Amino acid sequence: MSGSTPSGIVTLMTDFGMRQPFVGVMKGRILERFATARIVDLTHDILAHWPAEAGFWLSRSFGYFPPGTVHVAVVDPGVGTARDIAIVEAAGHVFLAPDNGLLAPIVEAHPEAGIWHLDPALLGGLGINRASATFHGRDVFAPIAAMLAAGRLRAEALGPRVDALVPAWVDRPTIDSHAISGIVITVDHFGNLITNIEGHWLSGWVEPKVYAGAYVLSLHRTYGDVPPGTPLALINSFGVVEIAVAERRADEQLGLSRAAPVVVRDLVRHG
Amino acid sequence: MSGSTPSGIVTLMTDFGMRQPFVGVMKGRILERFATARIVDLTHDILAHWPAEAGFWLSRSFGYFPPGTVHVAVVDPGVGTARDIAIVEAAGHVFLAPDNGLLAPIVEAHPEAGIWHLDPALLGGLGINRASATFHGRDVFAPIAAMLAAGRLRAEALGPRVDALVPAWVDRPTIDSHAISGIVITVDHFGNLITNIEGHWLSGWVEPKVYAGAYVLSLHRTYGDVPPGTPLALINSFGVVEIAVAERRADEQLGLSRAAPVVVRDLVRHG
Amino acid sequence: MSGSTPSGIVTLMTDFGMRQPFVGVMKGRILERFATARIVDLTHDILAHWPAEAGFWLSRSFGYFPPGTVHVAVVDPGVGTARDIAIVEAAGHVFLAPDNGLLAPIVEAHPEAGIWHLDPALLGGLGINRASATFHGRDVFAPIAAMLAAGRLRAEALGPRVDALVPAWVDRPTIDSHAISGIVITVDHFGNLITNIEGHWLSGWVEPKVYAGAYVLSLHRTYGDVPPGTPLALINSFGVVEIAVAERRADEQLGLSRAAPVVVRDLVRHG
Repeated sequence: MSGSTPSGIVTLMTDFGMRQPFVGVMKGRILERFATARIVDLTHDILAHWPAEAGFWLSRSFGYFPPGTVHVAVVDPGVGTARDIAIVEAAGHVFLAPDNGLLAPIVEAHPEAGIWHLDPALLGGLGINRASATFHGRDVFAPIAAMLAAGRLRAEALGPRVDALVPAWVDRPTIDSHAISGIVITVDHFGNLITNIEGHWLSGWVEPKVYAGAYVLSLHRTYGDVPPGTPLALINSFGVVEIAVAERRADEQLGLSRAAPVVVRDLVRHG
Repeated sequence: MSGSTPSGIVTLMTDFGMRQPFVGVMKGRILERFATARIVDLTHDILAHWPAEAGFWLSRSFGYFPPGTVHVAVVDPGVGTARDIAIVEAAGHVFLAPDNGLLAPIVEAHPEAGIWHLDPALLGGLGINRASATFHGRDVFAPIAAMLAAGRLRAEALGPRVDALVPAWVDRPTIDSHAISGIVITVDHFGNLITNIEGHWLSGWVEPKVYAGAYVLSLHRTYGDVPPGTPLALINSFGVVEIAVAERRADEQLGLSRAAPVVVRDLVRHG
Repeated sequence: MSGSTPSGIVTLMTDFGMRQPFVGVMKGRILERFATARIVDLTHDILAHWPAEAGFWLSRSFGYFPPGTVHVAVVDPGVGTARDIAIVEAAGHVFLAPDNGLLAPIVEAHPEAGIWHLDPALLGGLGINRASATFHGRDVFAPIAAMLAAGRLRAEALGPRVDALVPAWVDRPTIDSHAISGIVITVDHFGNLITNIEGHWLSGWVEPKVYAGAYVLSLHRTYGDVPPGTPLALINSFGVVEIAVAERRADEQLGLSRAAPVVVRDLVRHG
């Protein structure tokens, strides 16, 4: 694992929900091959069939786990068709996902990443036979993740190294010296609108204002810095621009949702 | 455990949801008696008080866990009344559930299964005192599962062996040479309609068609084999007939839900 | 830990939901510092920003875990403001939460509890640097819980001992000899209305009746003691008065919800 000792941890992110035992049987398959795996659910409520949201969260989350962790993300509208399965090694972590843009944010942030495509002809030799056409999470991803996490398999043994992945479904924000244009990439449990605009892009800006829908918002440090019911923007705990309403749901109060355009401008033209 | 070494894994399936700590305290009770148990949630969103859905999923899921696993399923509208608690050993696994039809699909598929009824008089000797009238999941099922999973207790020590369980709430599909009549047993997170019709019953059929509501559907291999928005049928990854709409919600688009009748006919009469 | 050997278990309760990886990254942070921690979710669906519900459930749940367990509860509308973080030791367990009333029910029930306020100046020495302003669950609570659960840190090393916590947001029920007035503190997955009225306060009462909305309900032992569709009251499995409708949703059928007033009266005046 690029020199990282396996941590024994496997994280799971899917759009399967938890109302059926889909995630549960993936865990059974992992424990079958790696009895002491510690399995952590990142989320199973990714918007169905939208790899962009999974890629955003995975790229923001993996760093809170020890190096040597294996991260499995299955948002897979093309399951059973000719789409590839990608294995990526970056920053000492291993990522396993359909090659449908999901892992693009990881590779963009880590140009040194190693990328492989799973060779289906190798599955039989790994004891993976008779995979279903519709549930590779259980039949392919889970057993491979178990073997990677146990340190019994390395990415380079899984298929050919490739140069690039399928690109992300969402364009990166456009940036110029006094305006950045991005989108709301996800809405959290509290109704906060989370954008794909990096907070550090604003460093050195004097008086940034966030434009979204009919609103122009100032940047604050935390929700409690404004009275309840007041809209605000902040750099959130994952390092991106977030639009919130203190102690209220911003999505409902501002009438904005996923994919809404967001622009940050610096009102003070300097230098 | 019928010769199976305990795997140390306990799976949980309930209709308790996760909005209250009901499942959490069951896990506390398990860890209290078996500190190294690995506990896997199958699902806690079974339709409230409908053991049939739990039985369907449990019988389809347990085989993805290693033999020696203990499976606890608590969908228990009769908690605190005179209903029995059943322990079943089948295929090297142990199952624990109220005897209300939930485990019937396990026993139907495994006629060699051993079946016991928990003798409440034995609970005190196992250190299980003062069980509440309304939460046997925590007070009875959890500690017994812990002891079974730890290998410190065997099913036959829990009470009398019995010949049969309360039957399932849902009739088995009727089968003749060119038509099978079943129902939608559950609707998954994506809105796919999952039936209780076994895919292998269709083997040898030439041109099976699936009738549901106003629709007649052809069988395909996977969702991606038809254009987005197209209804289809397939044998899903759990081996049963499923009705789906590619990249859409079949329940909404087709206006069908749980318990809807589904018939599969072979259009080509042969032989 | 007040003489209790660490159990190695960490429980988590938040209002974060599971649709984003907020809870997942907390677990990553815990496993990073305590690789063999066993982490149990109590619930992540506490009503957003209502510490009272979390305090109710935590005080009712912790006793089902072994002594030496660390319980982390993060319902934290004041995150990033001047609110304190409290560490409480009671009954051999350790509790970690914002000091916003959440832990008041624990301390009320355990007057001998030890209470400390986290000294932010000590965080750097514990390797906790650059905590975000908005996600102390991940950046402060998780690493401290890991060290407490691993037995590498003791509450008294975290800051000054204090005499009292911020009081609970919900008043305790008023009690006189023949009437107790409380509220519905939470509504469970089945629509049952759970009150903050202790069942043992009714001991010795002859014919208690529960008044809620337009209803006067008798106390029964379990749901199955009345026909389906019948409203009833009972002392539930957590020891408090609960209002239910057999095999139906009491919240919908009775038109009652969280914070609804509930009075229990004894119809037989005795003594």
